[in-house]
Amino acid sequence: MNVLFTFKIKDEQMERLQDRFPETHFAFNKDIDTAPIDDFEVIVTYGGDINTAVLERATSLQWLMVASAGVEQMPLAEIAEKGIVISNVRGIHKTPMAESVLAHILSLGRALPVLAEQQQRKEWKAKVRQTELRGSTAVILGPGAIGSEIGRLLQAFGVRTIGCNRSGNPAEYMNETIQFGDLLNVLPKADFVISVLPSTAETKYLLTEVHFKAMKPTATFMNFGRGDLVKESHLIEALKNGEIGHAVLDVFEREPLPAESDLWSLSNATISPHTSSHSGKYIERALEFFTENLTKWLSGDRELINLIDPKRGY
Amino acid sequence: MNVLFTFKIKDEQMERLQDRFPETHFAFNKDIDTAPIDDFEVIVTYGGDINTAVLERATSLQWLMVASAGVEQMPLAEIAEKGIVISNVRGIHKTPMAESVLAHILSLGRALPVLAEQQQRKEWKAKVRQTELRGSTAVILGPGAIGSEIGRLLQAFGVRTIGCNRSGNPAEYMNETIQFGDLLNVLPKADFVISVLPSTAETKYLLTEVHFKAMKPTATFMNFGRGDLVKESHLIEALKNGEIGHAVLDVFEREPLPAESDLWSLSNATISPHTSSHSGKYIERALEFFTENLTKWLSGDRELINLIDPKRGY
Repeated sequence: MNVLFTFKIKDEQMERLQDRFPETHFAFNKDIDTAPIDDFEVIVTYGGDINTAVLERATSLQWLMVASAGVEQMPLAEIAEKGIVISNVRGIHKTPMAESVLAHILSLGRALPVLAEQQQRKEWKAKVRQTELRGSTAVILGPGAIGSEIGRLLQAFGVRTIGCNRSGNPAEYMNETIQFGDLLNVLPKADFVISVLPSTAETKYLLTEVHFKAMKPTATFMNFGRGDLVKESHLIEALKNGEIGHAVLDVFEREPLPAESDLWSLSNATISPHTSSHSGKYIERALEFFTENLTKWLSGDRELINLIDPKRGY
Repeated sequence: MNVLFTFKIKDEQMERLQDRFPETHFAFNKDIDTAPIDDFEVIVTYGGDINTAVLERATSLQWLMVASAGVEQMPLAEIAEKGIVISNVRGIHKTPMAESVLAHILSLGRALPVLAEQQQRKEWKAKVRQTELRGSTAVILGPGAIGSEIGRLLQAFGVRTIGCNRSGNPAEYMNETIQFGDLLNVLPKADFVISVLPSTAETKYLLTEVHFKAMKPTATFMNFGRGDLVKESHLIEALKNGEIGHAVLDVFEREPLPAESDLWSLSNATISPHTSSHSGKYIERALEFFTENLTKWLSGDRELINLIDPKRGY
């Protein structure tokens, strides 16, 4: 059994794989366009280097392990036609993203930005407005893998979680789940409104002026999904008028956020340059998915985790 | 039954008490030295206003409810002699303190201070060193009420917790508990070394140069207990020499931290002016303790929560 990595992993990670799977031959070559690839049954890739020419040359290929959360850019029709199994690392972002969301919530609640400014001035001032997270309420737009992980952590802090999805069907780690259409009813209760929604026809500009007006003037709005959930102008108005207390934004209508955007300098907006999913442990986590799947594969089990139906694309 | 508050609570808090306990008369007077106090069975106080003269005048006093975590400054001998029941709000700090500790850990891990600096420069730069908390190891010095609450939250984030106390007896939410004497054995494994120890003969200068040298060069040391756990000069050396990665300090040998201290300007030190226990919900939490105890008291139950033995002082 031959496995080709087209991205670099650490020597010790490669050694660990080799120890775990002594019968398997692992190779690394980032130059898939020119490398001999006809005898590899498995290719582990970020996905961007797989095209129809590569597929033609990969005559032994049976399984494409894509170390990325999306496969939209890949030649899925050809993959389907050749009967190649394809899997990805869906869910790999949930840990760093949920940690990012909690980091922002706690940092604002415990006034860490204020303390940092005081430190710069060498100022000892203990009278700082600090709150407790415990006992507050969060609305989570998109209680899927990432949203539920956020819900799980929030519940550990004693936060009541209200999930909001298309169906209103119950979701994990949500005290309650409602449909998109009922959002206006729960917003007045929410101390945090957190979106991890993808961009779809239904979620595009889902939030408008009325939603911000319905929120508490102390509420924190957090967008960690996609920037087109709300028009930037509506959000800026809500922040300037004090309709909400604060916004933490990891995604924007236009990315990079243009220098002329008012968001950069609003004192009640926190700008994160679409980094909430980043992690120094990304490859480690991807290898955990791969190791689990390779164990299945070698035992003849083809029910891999995060299997993708190339005809549907997910 | 007459209850005197010597600190101000909100009107709605007073109304809620009155609704809950309609037979009880609640009064507020912050000027206990001159107010008539001879017909109050219960006094609710922060403690600092209770002296022997007040005790002499409080001829009906049966229960002192102290809305503070310590009672060292109070006339305990006289309280004991008069047979007055005394209780406090021990444990009230655990929620804000644990939230503060997690806020700092997550904020550093997810690089929020770096993102804040970038925002000030209107700089969109996604390449920022960010880590995951999951999978790391924390040593918690003092796994009591506060330390265990920190442990509980850390475990929710997938952190392995090692408690360290005098006895080595198991403590809640610790994967393992060791004695002070075994500390050097576990420090090399720790990503976080967090102290919430009080100041006692045993904890004073418990940490010395050897301990910092034993820590990982990437470790974060957090002191949220008492400043005399470590000599400031030892800590500064460890930070300057890169023996540890970062320090987050809420307590100091001298408070306020003198302006000439190097700690203020070290890029790998975060200064918090002894605010980690502060909370906008302090009085609310104190009233929860009081309400529970008043319910017991009125039913004749004298086994109050957080009862203090005035002869021992805790």
